[in-house]
Amino acid sequence: MPNVLDRILNPRTVAVVGASNDPEKRGYRAIKTLLADEYQGEIIPINPREKKILDLDCYARLPDAPQEIDLALICTPARTVPDVVRQCGEKGVKGALLLAGGFSEASEEGRKLEEETAAIARQYGVRLIGPNTNGMFSARYACNAIGWFDIPRGPIAVLSNSANVALSLVTEAQIHRYIGYSTMLSVGNQADLQFHDYLECLGEDPDTRAIISYVEGFKDGRAYLKAARKVTPVKPIVMYKAGRTDEGKGAAKSHSGSLAGDYTVASGVLRQAGVVLVTQSDHLYPVAEALAILPPLPTRRVAILSEGGGPITIAAEALAERGMVLAQLTQDTQQKLKGIVPNASALSNPVDAGGGTDPRAEYYGLCGRAILEDPNVDALLMVGYFGGYTTRYGESVAETENRYCVEVADMMKQYGKPIVVQTHYADFRTKALDILRKAGVPFYREIEIAVQCLASLADYTAAKRRLSAAEAGPRAKTEPAAAQIVQRVHEAARTSLLETEARELLACYGVAIPPALLARTAEDAEDVVAKLGAGPLALKIVSKDVLHKSEAGGVKLNVAGAEAVKHAIGDITASVKRHDPAADVAGVLAAPMAEKGVEVIVGVTRDPQFGPVLMFGLGGVFVEVIRDVVFRALPLSQADVEEMLRELRYKAMLEGARGLPAVDKSALVDLMLKVAALAAAHPEIVEIDLNPVIAHASGYTIADARMILAGA
Amino acid sequence: MPNVLDRILNPRTVAVVGASNDPEKRGYRAIKTLLADEYQGEIIPINPREKKILDLDCYARLPDAPQEIDLALICTPARTVPDVVRQCGEKGVKGALLLAGGFSEASEEGRKLEEETAAIARQYGVRLIGPNTNGMFSARYACNAIGWFDIPRGPIAVLSNSANVALSLVTEAQIHRYIGYSTMLSVGNQADLQFHDYLECLGEDPDTRAIISYVEGFKDGRAYLKAARKVTPVKPIVMYKAGRTDEGKGAAKSHSGSLAGDYTVASGVLRQAGVVLVTQSDHLYPVAEALAILPPLPTRRVAILSEGGGPITIAAEALAERGMVLAQLTQDTQQKLKGIVPNASALSNPVDAGGGTDPRAEYYGLCGRAILEDPNVDALLMVGYFGGYTTRYGESVAETENRYCVEVADMMKQYGKPIVVQTHYADFRTKALDILRKAGVPFYREIEIAVQCLASLADYTAAKRRLSAAEAGPRAKTEPAAAQIVQRVHEAARTSLLETEARELLACYGVAIPPALLARTAEDAEDVVAKLGAGPLALKIVSKDVLHKSEAGGVKLNVAGAEAVKHAIGDITASVKRHDPAADVAGVLAAPMAEKGVEVIVGVTRDPQFGPVLMFGLGGVFVEVIRDVVFRALPLSQADVEEMLRELRYKAMLEGARGLPAVDKSALVDLMLKVAALAAAHPEIVEIDLNPVIAHASGYTIADARMILAGA
Repeated sequence: MPNVLDRILNPRTVAVVGASNDPEKRGYRAIKTLLADEYQGEIIPINPREKKILDLDCYARLPDAPQEIDLALICTPARTVPDVVRQCGEKGVKGALLLAGGFSEASEEGRKLEEETAAIARQYGVRLIGPNTNGMFSARYACNAIGWFDIPRGPIAVLSNSANVALSLVTEAQIHRYIGYSTMLSVGNQADLQFHDYLECLGEDPDTRAIISYVEGFKDGRAYLKAARKVTPVKPIVMYKAGRTDEGKGAAKSHSGSLAGDYTVASGVLRQAGVVLVTQSDHLYPVAEALAILPPLPTRRVAILSEGGGPITIAAEALAERGMVLAQLTQDTQQKLKGIVPNASALSNPVDAGGGTDPRAEYYGLCGRAILEDPNVDALLMVGYFGGYTTRYGESVAETENRYCVEVADMMKQYGKPIVVQTHYADFRTKALDILRKAGVPFYREIEIAVQCLASLADYTAAKRRLSAAEAGPRAKTEPAAAQIVQRVHEAARTSLLETEARELLACYGVAIPPALLARTAEDAEDVVAKLGAGPLALKIVSKDVLHKSEAGGVKLNVAGAEAVKHAIGDITASVKRHDPAADVAGVLAAPMAEKGVEVIVGVTRDPQFGPVLMFGLGGVFVEVIRDVVFRALPLSQADVEEMLRELRYKAMLEGARGLPAVDKSALVDLMLKVAALAAAHPEIVEIDLNPVIAHASGYTIADARMILAGA
Repeated sequence: MPNVLDRILNPRTVAVVGASNDPEKRGYRAIKTLLADEYQGEIIPINPREKKILDLDCYARLPDAPQEIDLALICTPARTVPDVVRQCGEKGVKGALLLAGGFSEASEEGRKLEEETAAIARQYGVRLIGPNTNGMFSARYACNAIGWFDIPRGPIAVLSNSANVALSLVTEAQIHRYIGYSTMLSVGNQADLQFHDYLECLGEDPDTRAIISYVEGFKDGRAYLKAARKVTPVKPIVMYKAGRTDEGKGAAKSHSGSLAGDYTVASGVLRQAGVVLVTQSDHLYPVAEALAILPPLPTRRVAILSEGGGPITIAAEALAERGMVLAQLTQDTQQKLKGIVPNASALSNPVDAGGGTDPRAEYYGLCGRAILEDPNVDALLMVGYFGGYTTRYGESVAETENRYCVEVADMMKQYGKPIVVQTHYADFRTKALDILRKAGVPFYREIEIAVQCLASLADYTAAKRRLSAAEAGPRAKTEPAAAQIVQRVHEAARTSLLETEARELLACYGVAIPPALLARTAEDAEDVVAKLGAGPLALKIVSKDVLHKSEAGGVKLNVAGAEAVKHAIGDITASVKRHDPAADVAGVLAAPMAEKGVEVIVGVTRDPQFGPVLMFGLGGVFVEVIRDVVFRALPLSQADVEEMLRELRYKAMLEGARGLPAVDKSALVDLMLKVAALAAAHPEIVEIDLNPVIAHASGYTIADARMILAGA
């Protein structure tokens, strides 16, 4: 059964409300455009003052039209819209596309008008596109309700917060002449239908093989993630998500009223859902094209083949910077290559078949095949002249070049390994490029873009594998002992747990908690040393009234020996009392100092767009200055958590930097999964902050734990 | 007087050695190409077996030709080249372009052949281009000795380690049809003429307004820096320097035999010399074009003008990420804008004149002028449809659009502020874009590239200002006391200075050295405490035989009180003796612990390509894991040093991160200049390593100082 929106996005009948015989009016242009693009369905003009518009029968009101109406294209001003939507409801119209601006993006009054409109739509079950949208194009029945001409048709869908970004994609496709669009939609204010609704529909759309999205902000981020997780295992989503900088956030807010939110959170949870992010707008189209047509790339091992060293060097650099690996060619392959090009400049990867100035299009085929047969190679990047030999050297080489273009495409199919061509002639109209294009081998002018396509393909292939392997985790299970702790905190009318409580709670979920003892008075020092050893110990105040322990003089580290512990307990208590005479002090928590290691942070917070997220990051300067932190939405899988570790910018810190041994990463993964389980079992805990956790070769030590309950 | 190379790069007579009547031969094609491109000079074929080639008189040997010869284009195989170059010498030929490969890039034998050739050339004063080059194109007399057709002519010169990179620039210019080339040269093996020689000549070339360079490595980096410092105040150099990754370094080595060297060093010293670096190859052409034609950009304050919010958001993001600033429009400007576009979506910067779907080309002119008049604005970025209105909306808007294209160009001249246009229609052949092109307003399809052009323009303008303001520093002056210290070390047959010596030497050049005392025995503890206070003190072994002090147990920190100091001196000495019983111990250096601050590193090293360089970086994890370090070549100016501080990735650390006050940056600048003066006065000191230096609010404390003499 097709998605309910399918009929709205690919309508068989379109009513144009506000249709007009005045060529200056939108209601005239809308019909004109539909006709010009040879819309395959029926157009029904609505205007109380006309009988015919552009030779079509016109009706006064929507309910007057005899036909079933899939989509009403509403060209009338904002103030009329609630009434028109009511007419849609009365008529049983499936969807209404609201072009007018002047709603929530414009004023408080407009916001109310939008709410009113949405309420009427809900009442009648009419779905709304917009308002404040430039419209929609869908190729299946050639429904051009967006007003741009010559939109190339093909397997890419576009969902955008901006019509201009979509238009830019149209001109790009027109120039590149490679791939075109199945659906283009500018979402407008999303009064009813949102990004995730359209996404779900396009996920099931047989005409769509990849989805490009330009997103300034989500109104319902969790719904988007859910939809994306369904779609990405089937087809790629390539997204530019705005908001990496304050300036970008400000412009997005001003443009679409979107709250872009924290980009680090957004990029983490979107990647988790399999979305491929780009940070340059000119990557949207090529990456989507490549992902739509190329076979998967299960590793990051690429071979480079060229006849010129400069572009090879640039390609090698760009690959390495995107985490790709130059595949190690076998001796056998190198022998084969030597047989083909005895005087090649380089036979190991990168392969440079150059050295002269002669046309050598055949080498791309012959060497290409030898390389693709190599078991160490999973993708091939060709850089240089290929596709332009004939332009460069004349018609005499055309036959060879064209033949090898066919051959290269065949090889890609035969070996199931992706091939991307970078050619200096990509923007020229050559027969060779036409052959590549028709055979499904993508080509680009820019080396860095060709490389980005391969890197994104590897990311996407990995995400697909991860998402299809991910089992639904066990259902959140609340430990009774943990529930009791929370209950006690509630009863004490507190919203933050004492550190002792947080530690107990973590222990309920199997988190390793170092031994510790709560000393109520200095006299407990003997007992502390008897049970925890003579030190060095860390001593910390435990008090519901002390939030910043260090500032209150509530922390002492490296305290050794019973006498020193006794003094320290006394000092801490006295200092805290000086700092806040009314503070209710539960005692002083003593614990052995952690083994030397790397400070990390594990936490759970609530993102305004995406809800509960797990945070993992490096501590110290890494969190405070560099913000080397990674987020994933809850619930999450073990593969998600492992990817968080790999995604740290300075993950070298975990591998044994600065003379320390490598940390036990599996212990960290285990900790993060347990914290995630705890958060799932206790939705009332809105914030968890284990900071720092000392990660070391034999596990981890949680040096401080904080938890906050809802209502704080 | 023109540069000596000018006559070689723009020859009036070209002899083609190895000329041929066989159309398959290089010596035929070379002449054919010169003729086809209507070379304005005289072509002289040289071939002992022919009388006429392509209707031109042919001579057996070079000396037989009656004419004066500017350039000999040598098409014969490698083994014949020494003899041909000798003929060039006998004839008094000014330059020889050696196309053949098979020299140092190919084999040891080839390397010897290249040396032999170069020696002959030196003997006769013949300058060599290549060998192993694809040739050269120069526009002045239409000398096409590179074999590509339809090279667009214009004010950009190209110097490249790779012919293919240059060819890619040709195809790019052919498609973009904006700006073309004055000279293109693939430098080959640089047996004689090197990057810096060509650069100097092009710096003086009246036909050249900007120089694009693709460089894998320099044979003489210091000569290049010297040439660049002469050229960049006059015209921009835009460079892709290979070697950011190991993979790029490997490919460069394999391609051109170049040692790419440390990219951080190269990028620092090249920027210091005013070179504009790009890290994407597709930025070379647009950035060079923009820098060639735009007025300067003395600040980073940019205004954005558009009629659509999505591209505005992307532009704002890209600007911010490149350190540009959204200019604050005055109230007056905003009022003016409101008068022009009453229902604009946004009137503060970015200015969004949109809100409808109507053509509004006039807004770009009217709003553009209001914005350029604003004293807070120094550059204008237009994003969206401009240049494509007629394509989008039809001929009815052509007159308006074209008029405002003229108007925009006039505004740029009138206000002397750069304007860059990003248009979705950049790749379309529109009349409007032709007008912009001819009037000198650059336009691009990609938002990020338009932004990069502005960012690079601001960088270049700042570099020009810095270079023209830089005074030649005082001549290196050696302090006699310092010379004596070095002399003592020499006499002791040591190559590394003791820390006490390094400290004295620094003090000779005015570097602030904290009080310290060398304790020879534990009995000196009383004296130490009497003179330095009771602590806490840092104690360190001083011994020529102990390189790694901490490992030898030779360091104790935070030692307080005479008794503890006494014990510590004893412990240190004993520990070092255990570690190396033969170690010659001078004593234990005691100094007060440094004020709390930020660890930085100041050093001097010798780069294999660029010679002595000053290094500055953040210490701790920042140097060990992040490598947040910056380099500049010696000698350097105060402005250079100030820029080093600004160039740190995590310069926030100096501004008061992590609860510390901001450090005294002028003290750091002073320290770096003094270390540079010391290094200049003592070329025999090949390495200086002040690590760490604790930078704090009231200056700096050098916690450790190391110096190494040549011969180590």
